[in-house]
Amino acid sequence: MVLPRRPGPSQRVRVREVTGTSSRVREDRLTTEEPLEMRLAWPGRPAERLSVTMRTPGHDFELTAGFLYGEGLVRSASDFHTVAYCTDRTLSPEQEFNVVTAELAGPPARQPGVRYEGPTAGASACGVCGKESIDEVLAVCEAGHAPDRWAGVTVPADVVAAIPDRLREAQRVFDSTGGLHAAGLFDLEGKPLVVREDVGRHNAVDKVVGHRVLAGEATDLPVLCVSGRIGFELAQKAVAAGVGMIAAVGAPSSLAVKLAADAGLCMVGFVRGERFVIYTEHDRVGV
Amino acid sequence: MVLPRRPGPSQRVRVREVTGTSSRVREDRLTTEEPLEMRLAWPGRPAERLSVTMRTPGHDFELTAGFLYGEGLVRSASDFHTVAYCTDRTLSPEQEFNVVTAELAGPPARQPGVRYEGPTAGASACGVCGKESIDEVLAVCEAGHAPDRWAGVTVPADVVAAIPDRLREAQRVFDSTGGLHAAGLFDLEGKPLVVREDVGRHNAVDKVVGHRVLAGEATDLPVLCVSGRIGFELAQKAVAAGVGMIAAVGAPSSLAVKLAADAGLCMVGFVRGERFVIYTEHDRVGV
Repeated sequence: MVLPRRPGPSQRVRVREVTGTSSRVREDRLTTEEPLEMRLAWPGRPAERLSVTMRTPGHDFELTAGFLYGEGLVRSASDFHTVAYCTDRTLSPEQEFNVVTAELAGPPARQPGVRYEGPTAGASACGVCGKESIDEVLAVCEAGHAPDRWAGVTVPADVVAAIPDRLREAQRVFDSTGGLHAAGLFDLEGKPLVVREDVGRHNAVDKVVGHRVLAGEATDLPVLCVSGRIGFELAQKAVAAGVGMIAAVGAPSSLAVKLAADAGLCMVGFVRGERFVIYTEHDRVGV
Repeated sequence: MVLPRRPGPSQRVRVREVTGTSSRVREDRLTTEEPLEMRLAWPGRPAERLSVTMRTPGHDFELTAGFLYGEGLVRSASDFHTVAYCTDRTLSPEQEFNVVTAELAGPPARQPGVRYEGPTAGASACGVCGKESIDEVLAVCEAGHAPDRWAGVTVPADVVAAIPDRLREAQRVFDSTGGLHAAGLFDLEGKPLVVREDVGRHNAVDKVVGHRVLAGEATDLPVLCVSGRIGFELAQKAVAAGVGMIAAVGAPSSLAVKLAADAGLCMVGFVRGERFVIYTEHDRVGV
């Protein structure tokens, strides 16, 4: 398998498909997974590596912008001077589209933390520690958003139940590879405003949030829907975006529910058919 | 929700379940997610943070041992002096069971890398970069394992097809929360040798590998089965363990298939009923 210079969201591969006692060789499609290194610069500070994430190529600037927004490093489109693929001469041609530099118009809204990191390079996922991190996440949110923004706003139960189907309808690649997570932002009528896919569910969320940020549009929309499960990191990104509800096809974790409860985020899981489970802010679904 | 001092794999929570136009309040169970900080020490070097991962508590020493093994930092049980929860007095009671220190008997097999890390703390997942990382992973493997170890060894197709069911049978928690990934090591007859669960699929793999390492047993078993998808990081851990085949219920990514092809690892995906897809080493399944 030869990787193209600028890989698309999926790639062809020759596979052997086994059914019972027979098998046949056929062509199949794989979800593309490539590393993305995000670098951050601002006037007076040269570009430095901020994070590396394994992602599906496409919407890389949105991914970078959404990641920075979720970390509280930027607040709006005007905080960016440029977001571009790196033209570092030391990069090999294959890596050229795997490095994005965000150059800010000024110093970031808060200082990017520098932490010790082990032999595995930093994933964009998770990692902050228990109680302290929840306080830290809430502090980031308080700076940008109002936790009581959604008091009294309800999403109709039939809208909640229909949203995962609309998310799937908006996915173009999923059917051909079966390997992509999706995330989407929805209004109170369940209309998708932006849907993105990625091999990593946290990247899909960063892409939808980043799309809104770069477009100069609000991120605090009624519903963020994700195709998989809700871990702490996803709850964190939902709180940072200021959405009213996070709805998922899968289950939430204990720490995700705890963060949602503390932040006043309505968390809904196991949305399957007309049935779903509300974990926090029980009254924000209209039944 | 009050978190107990030493949380179990799942926790109770009061939820509102909606079905169509009716709803009822009931008790539900959540998969526990808590951060685990892994620290590494050896004679002459005090404990330093190696990595932080969001995990389901339980088998934390195995998780730590498996992570170190996958990174090529240890080769066998005799490399460990102790693996223990940290007794650092600065830790709050809630954090006491969220910090594990591995004290090695001597310097690690290779130097743990120190890399720059962004505002998100390091996850144990992914992050190494494209081509270089594959070479690096193979170099780690070559030091400990023989890539042609599995030449000519085939796993019968009916065994491959049956393994995910055996993995599910071995999962105790899954049914109650629906929020856990599983991983297991299997022999050529499809018998599970060790099965572990976690909110993060990479942690589940680290736990099964770490179990074998700490028990002084070989990790290069015929089949590693995982309940979800196969990303690059999982392929990496499978290669490091030296298994013959990685089989998954979900899809592999492009980079996972590329690594498997380079390393001579048989990769099988979409194992559902009697049907599955072989991505690499097509001849290592007996049909």
